Amino acid sequence: MTALNDYRKTAVSDSEPITDEEIFRAHEGGKLGVEVTKPLADPRSLSIAYTPGVAKVSRAIAEDASLAARYTWASRLVVVVSDGTAVLGLGDIGASASLPVMEGKAALFKTFGGLDSIPLVLDTTNVDEIVETLVRLRPSFGAVNLEDVSAPRCFELEERLIEALDCPVMHDDQHGTAIVLLAALRGANTVLSKDIANQRVVIAGAGAAGIACAKILLAAGAGDVTLLDSRGIIHEGRDHLNPIKEQMAKVTNHSGLRGGQTEALAGADVFVGLSAGTVPEDIVATMAKDSIVFALSNPDPEIHPDIARKYAAIVATGRSDFPNQINNVLAFPGIFRGALDSGARRITERMKLAAADAIAAVAEDDLAVDRIVPSALDPRVAPEVAAAVARAAKEDGVA
Amino acid sequence: MTALNDYRKTAVSDSEPITDEEIFRAHEGGKLGVEVTKPLADPRSLSIAYTPGVAKVSRAIAEDASLAARYTWASRLVVVVSDGTAVLGLGDIGASASLPVMEGKAALFKTFGGLDSIPLVLDTTNVDEIVETLVRLRPSFGAVNLEDVSAPRCFELEERLIEALDCPVMHDDQHGTAIVLLAALRGANTVLSKDIANQRVVIAGAGAAGIACAKILLAAGAGDVTLLDSRGIIHEGRDHLNPIKEQMAKVTNHSGLRGGQTEALAGADVFVGLSAGTVPEDIVATMAKDSIVFALSNPDPEIHPDIARKYAAIVATGRSDFPNQINNVLAFPGIFRGALDSGARRITERMKLAAADAIAAVAEDDLAVDRIVPSALDPRVAPEVAAAVARAAKEDGVA
Repeated sequence: MTALNDYRKTAVSDSEPITDEEIFRAHEGGKLGVEVTKPLADPRSLSIAYTPGVAKVSRAIAEDASLAARYTWASRLVVVVSDGTAVLGLGDIGASASLPVMEGKAALFKTFGGLDSIPLVLDTTNVDEIVETLVRLRPSFGAVNLEDVSAPRCFELEERLIEALDCPVMHDDQHGTAIVLLAALRGANTVLSKDIANQRVVIAGAGAAGIACAKILLAAGAGDVTLLDSRGIIHEGRDHLNPIKEQMAKVTNHSGLRGGQTEALAGADVFVGLSAGTVPEDIVATMAKDSIVFALSNPDPEIHPDIARKYAAIVATGRSDFPNQINNVLAFPGIFRGALDSGARRITERMKLAAADAIAAVAEDDLAVDRIVPSALDPRVAPEVAAAVARAAKEDGVA
Repeated sequence: MTALNDYRKTAVSDSEPITDEEIFRAHEGGKLGVEVTKPLADPRSLSIAYTPGVAKVSRAIAEDASLAARYTWASRLVVVVSDGTAVLGLGDIGASASLPVMEGKAALFKTFGGLDSIPLVLDTTNVDEIVETLVRLRPSFGAVNLEDVSAPRCFELEERLIEALDCPVMHDDQHGTAIVLLAALRGANTVLSKDIANQRVVIAGAGAAGIACAKILLAAGAGDVTLLDSRGIIHEGRDHLNPIKEQMAKVTNHSGLRGGQTEALAGADVFVGLSAGTVPEDIVATMAKDSIVFALSNPDPEIHPDIARKYAAIVATGRSDFPNQINNVLAFPGIFRGALDSGARRITERMKLAAADAIAAVAEDDLAVDRIVPSALDPRVAPEVAAAVARAAKEDGVA
């Protein structure tokens, strides 16, 4: 995996501000290229890599399909798939406009996971059609990273793809975020000597990331998780619950709370903001002693970290210019690398939990209130995550 | 475009024979990789190429779709598309087994055309489904190179894709071969002081390449072209004609010949073999004085070039170990490069003819009986073809 020597360098905020001109200049022509790993510049190599030599390799794969994994790039190629319906904070901007994000994602797969990756953006938002398209293209790739697909379609789409394809499939906006959040909470709890089983966690936002965070925290032993959507606390029997929220209502809110943010946060130990909303200072002030605030909305956290720190013992955001950045890049390159290294046919819950543990373990020797997770650019993370995920895949019998 | 200094080096036959072991070793892990063109190794570049910076680029494209061409890789990305139904001489071996060929093709696009290219192989042979799949993926690429799709499906598929997609689409097995053949015939005719208008041309094989060769030779002014399929000479009113052969029967065989290879070749000026069949020596002996033989079947030419040369003035094959190699790589990298450079919405007949002329022009200063086309590795060819194709696109008003 690529060496990243600069990961401890000055944060972005300390250097010159980034101008629009610099951003657009850096995107001229896109951010990806194809490289030829076996040069074709002389007659001999042309005869080997193309006709007539290549015919032997094709014939061998025709006779034994398993050889495709060895003699083509496809089995280790991650396709970054989006329909452009929930792009960053921009919403449904369409496939073409989502491409720069998908190119960035593919670049991160290469940089941190050493994996080849290409964007496939789709001019349809129909779940059946997206599944059908990827089933037809199945021989072309080795894994699917779903990205920026709107909720609740994203839940059905991910489930359907996992059923239809015999390869790792993961919607990163759900699970990448959840895995890094869990790793960060583990780090924070170690610093504060707290136990997840005794904490009351409030998650604001019941979209892709909120639902996945609730699920992974429950799987990791969280004692009490409460989910909020735009109508307030999600509880059984409430109005306006889609199927996934109904399902979550059954396993969350053990305290039986009713109401909104005010009621949910009074006395809460952990706040996880994933809603693009805001939390007033006087509500954060009502949280329990030594509380933990994850204000993850980007680019504007639900509450400014400096304000939150007046009440909370630990504060994390999604931004690179504050301490404790919760960044999916800590998870997805290692998860897919580990899944593909092990030959896993799917990504299991155990593999996700193992990834969170591995991220937390890297942070462990240097934990502090402002260092609950490793830096997003820490080159130690992806190999550790990959190894842990590959082990978990074997334990689960999916590899 | 990549410099290819070795293109005049010893032909493959003069060096050590290529072993199976060497071929398979060179295919380990496949032949392609993704490269990150804008490094992401420090916080600043991460903030530019990914969040939060990338959001500005996505928003700009959402507001003005034309900006995708400038700020993503897609508009210059060639997808090499196959269903694996007619792979080299191996036939219908399926999508997965076709992948090494498609990777080789993508590598040639990069090496000779400087274009990024990825294989998309499809687990369906249904024309409707292939068209539908590429329409859905349209925002992901800039051009389609169709490859190794069986005839007559390939004719309908190419036509349907050209209609459905607003970008360059070309089935290389048809047009790449035809363009290089025309260039080679121009070279041969210059050497022999012949005129295509006065030649009787016989094409054995009425599949993808045979039909396309007949069409381009007619478009280039060939006076008399006769097509043969496995049942003999194609003529109006004959049995077993599919729609494309029926159409060809109307514009070929001006001499009104009947019968098979023997009848067709007696007194013929040019033979083009594209049938994977054989031509006996005594039939070649009946061709006209100063005849030209293109024995293009691979790996076994229809007649050994040394035998053919006893009767024909000029002999060409598809092989790199004999003189006058008719290799598509002389055409497709420059054609797609020229089409994309000019922003062409399609590839017209004029663009194909311009490509043939450009290839012929490169060979012109060094023409001889055994040098009727440039070497497949001649780095001068693709830029010349690209420039000529871009000019023709503008003349045709498609750019």
